[in-house]
Amino acid sequence: MANVLGANQYGKAENRVVRIVRDTARHEIHDLNVSTSLRGEFAAAHTIGDQAQVLPTDTQKNTAFAYAKLRGVSSIEDYALALGQRLLEACPAADEAQVRVEQYAWDRLGQHSFVRRGGEVRTCVVTVGRDATHVLSGLQDLVVLNSTDSEFKGFLKDEFTTLAETDDRILATSLVARWRHTVTDGDWNESYDEVRDCLLSTFATSYSRALQETLHYMGGAVLDRLQDVAEIRFSAPNRHHFLVDFSGFGIDGLTNDGEVFIAADRPYGLIEAQVTREGAPDPGNAWLAVPGFC
Amino acid sequence: MANVLGANQYGKAENRVVRIVRDTARHEIHDLNVSTSLRGEFAAAHTIGDQAQVLPTDTQKNTAFAYAKLRGVSSIEDYALALGQRLLEACPAADEAQVRVEQYAWDRLGQHSFVRRGGEVRTCVVTVGRDATHVLSGLQDLVVLNSTDSEFKGFLKDEFTTLAETDDRILATSLVARWRHTVTDGDWNESYDEVRDCLLSTFATSYSRALQETLHYMGGAVLDRLQDVAEIRFSAPNRHHFLVDFSGFGIDGLTNDGEVFIAADRPYGLIEAQVTREGAPDPGNAWLAVPGFC
Amino acid sequence: MANVLGANQYGKAENRVVRIVRDTARHEIHDLNVSTSLRGEFAAAHTIGDQAQVLPTDTQKNTAFAYAKLRGVSSIEDYALALGQRLLEACPAADEAQVRVEQYAWDRLGQHSFVRRGGEVRTCVVTVGRDATHVLSGLQDLVVLNSTDSEFKGFLKDEFTTLAETDDRILATSLVARWRHTVTDGDWNESYDEVRDCLLSTFATSYSRALQETLHYMGGAVLDRLQDVAEIRFSAPNRHHFLVDFSGFGIDGLTNDGEVFIAADRPYGLIEAQVTREGAPDPGNAWLAVPGFC
Amino acid sequence: MANVLGANQYGKAENRVVRIVRDTARHEIHDLNVSTSLRGEFAAAHTIGDQAQVLPTDTQKNTAFAYAKLRGVSSIEDYALALGQRLLEACPAADEAQVRVEQYAWDRLGQHSFVRRGGEVRTCVVTVGRDATHVLSGLQDLVVLNSTDSEFKGFLKDEFTTLAETDDRILATSLVARWRHTVTDGDWNESYDEVRDCLLSTFATSYSRALQETLHYMGGAVLDRLQDVAEIRFSAPNRHHFLVDFSGFGIDGLTNDGEVFIAADRPYGLIEAQVTREGAPDPGNAWLAVPGFC
Repeated sequence: MANVLGANQYGKAENRVVRIVRDTARHEIHDLNVSTSLRGEFAAAHTIGDQAQVLPTDTQKNTAFAYAKLRGVSSIEDYALALGQRLLEACPAADEAQVRVEQYAWDRLGQHSFVRRGGEVRTCVVTVGRDATHVLSGLQDLVVLNSTDSEFKGFLKDEFTTLAETDDRILATSLVARWRHTVTDGDWNESYDEVRDCLLSTFATSYSRALQETLHYMGGAVLDRLQDVAEIRFSAPNRHHFLVDFSGFGIDGLTNDGEVFIAADRPYGLIEAQVTREGAPDPGNAWLAVPGFC
Repeated sequence: MANVLGANQYGKAENRVVRIVRDTARHEIHDLNVSTSLRGEFAAAHTIGDQAQVLPTDTQKNTAFAYAKLRGVSSIEDYALALGQRLLEACPAADEAQVRVEQYAWDRLGQHSFVRRGGEVRTCVVTVGRDATHVLSGLQDLVVLNSTDSEFKGFLKDEFTTLAETDDRILATSLVARWRHTVTDGDWNESYDEVRDCLLSTFATSYSRALQETLHYMGGAVLDRLQDVAEIRFSAPNRHHFLVDFSGFGIDGLTNDGEVFIAADRPYGLIEAQVTREGAPDPGNAWLAVPGFC
Repeated sequence: MANVLGANQYGKAENRVVRIVRDTARHEIHDLNVSTSLRGEFAAAHTIGDQAQVLPTDTQKNTAFAYAKLRGVSSIEDYALALGQRLLEACPAADEAQVRVEQYAWDRLGQHSFVRRGGEVRTCVVTVGRDATHVLSGLQDLVVLNSTDSEFKGFLKDEFTTLAETDDRILATSLVARWRHTVTDGDWNESYDEVRDCLLSTFATSYSRALQETLHYMGGAVLDRLQDVAEIRFSAPNRHHFLVDFSGFGIDGLTNDGEVFIAADRPYGLIEAQVTREGAPDPGNAWLAVPGFC
Repeated sequence: MANVLGANQYGKAENRVVRIVRDTARHEIHDLNVSTSLRGEFAAAHTIGDQAQVLPTDTQKNTAFAYAKLRGVSSIEDYALALGQRLLEACPAADEAQVRVEQYAWDRLGQHSFVRRGGEVRTCVVTVGRDATHVLSGLQDLVVLNSTDSEFKGFLKDEFTTLAETDDRILATSLVARWRHTVTDGDWNESYDEVRDCLLSTFATSYSRALQETLHYMGGAVLDRLQDVAEIRFSAPNRHHFLVDFSGFGIDGLTNDGEVFIAADRPYGLIEAQVTREGAPDPGNAWLAVPGFC
């Protein structure tokens, strides 16, 4: 039997595009990490080394930088949509262009001075096809912690189970979230701020019986607030904070009532979950080749 | 309209399991990074915080360590299969258990002394379901380089294209490969060695008109050699080595005939591709939630 | 000739100490990475394997966690001083205890809910000796950028020089700074805020003829403002942002007037410099084994 | 009182120089990470922004690449010496040039095909002054493990001590070592191989009462074997492997006799130590600004 080429895509990953807007003395900065991919009829490149239909990844890179100037970055979604459409136009063999962007936030120090904010990174994944276009917005590295109002008990036990039930633990995660829009234009910056606020406020005000439940609350709150969001997906490591055991220490009165923890690196729990609006339109290829989600 | 729970899974990621076999004075070491996930009917945990059907990730961790003793690590695939079957038995609500393993190789220095080898990491992803079981073997971080016999020309050009065609460049990648077996037992160590040899020897002996073509050769060679492999998937960054331009230097006779390069970090090309045996059985959930492949 | 033991130290690195203050419903969080080292008469441990004078690194770890409870973390400097004094008391063979702390900031979301801030990390290195005690405060990962008012010209040229002079470039760095106090008590939190403000405001308001000059301004401003600071040391990578060359693109009117840059990873310039108050007291061992400074 | 400029240096860090030797069909590869620094009379650059004496870091980068061609890389020490001498010549204001190199090893697959070896990285730090030149050779990321013949007991105890004494534990470290030569020419490749062999064979054959003792053996063995080495310095994290406690598991006969361990990330012990030949010449500035050593 013969071998056949399966699914494939190619592109340029992690273009570090920095766009300064300097039309006035008060500059703006857009600091991006941009990755592009093309999918389609590229069999000849694979099977006989024929590049005639292949728009080089170097050209994709050039286009990513040029579009930061030609179209600007009013939002990463608008930038990614324009870039994806351009790549699809430039490459007839392609059926779909996927553009992923990560944006690093900066705070203003002066007219042309900035300090990088840190904290969560805003993301998007835009898939532009010949027939359909999909927009996922998202964030990653949003590290949140509740120092109480989290329990974990009533779980299934077997002969390998040694975990004690607890009424009071630290709940912490470094959240990755992506939500799918049913529209392809809109005020992406405003909706991002709304989702972020919604995630944080729900996290802060929910009593948690498991990280699963907390994520479900958070996802539901987002869907309730933004009618143009069809679904939201989470990948959430359970960042364990273990209570330090002072019982063997020879210090009178040294107790640990939920006050001193060791933050562990590995292993960590990992919860992946989706909340979907009932009757939402089919995602098509919106999530194809988006890492980190079941 | 209501919101509904979508696909979900949970588990314990990155258990650093080190197993020493010391039945004789000549010890053996198995150094693993083990991640487990369960999927199935866990809606109650998400929607009403009920953990009665949830086998804790802590228990999954304990089982991963205990099975290193109880079953040993004759190969990471055998270990993962045993662990996945156990987790499925222990958790009636689960439909599938996925076990991922990375193995770090050590070289022997003495009877009980070892030095970590470095180089590629051997991997597997095993999915044990109620009806079907899938085994993916793989490797990652296999960094290979050809210092000639690689060209890139004849490609599609548009107004953003500035890349010069070349007859002679460095071709380098840090390969991730995973291959799907049609069997669930076998001599996994032997087949791993065969695939690795096949990948390296094909890389070293192929003239390359694009990384896509080289990957396609490599995948085809693996399928030709191992009849129990149904398909192989690659994720291959094109690690660019740019020829340093000495033309502006004021040094008589200083030329660069493919001799001095700067190895770039970002951006990098990224090629993802599959080679499948014609008529191979359907993969089912074998690739579900395996990151890094289109 | 014989071999002799040279300088040595030992300790426990990177204890991830998380302290929750929960005396009221409004919790506080202190999130630390703590490393301790002891130096002194430990030759027997090295030369004949005798541990009788060695306070185990495990005990140092326990003490770091216990002191988060016993002494609290009013500031990382106060915590480190108390911990260093304790370790020195507990280990008669030691001449000096060095305690290094990194502190990760969190913003409040609610009474017991927090989101990690990101941005710079506050640090200290405290060295407690039998006779002298030293306090270095600092910060790292403070990423700042000026999008104009930076030039680089008039530099020395040789036959390998190809760099063009420029009147207008991006100046960006990820700053590491440490400053030495002449006192061993004080309001460390207040002085930290003052130094940080001083560094940022000076960076934002200085015209730069080189990163060296900018650092010198920043250091001078700190010394002028805080009379109890004897010196400040910087390690500052010059994070290059290269102007993207659009000249080969076939797009009419596409220019790049300081608007689109590629942020490079490697190589990077690296500037290390100190500014010292004239007549400042000798640093003694304050900087011993502090990495990253010439 | 006025402020004064303290010690300072500047340079270009992490130039990723790849040199292919292709004089015959059988190519050779030298894969380097090169950092350079200059020290001297650069006060004007700091205090008044005058760059007239400053050889740009961009020129230093260019020189690093050009010298890979002009001088080749017979060994990283020889390359670094030539590069340092050149930089000192080109920059009259400099008193010293420091060149640091890391070399990544590749194994041969064919005439022009290579696979990166992994494992330890070979290093050097060369300091070329107007009067004196120093050569440090070294290695890093040499991960070694003994699965028995390691104890830790008889240590100092206080009220925070909970560690149990043990007769049998895993001893593992990721070694950084640097050794200082008393000569400035020699067969650096041969001496490197000798030191590496010496370190590994001593590690593998020593009974260990503490990591300190093992390092001392290793250092002594190097000095005994290479008469042109004046001293050796180690930085060695104690990579803890904790025995997994199966006592709470409900499995009859499940014991753990030194067979199953969890490899911990943080915290880790950290041992830094030197072994010096009695009467060795003074190191001068050989170790100035070399990170990671007390």
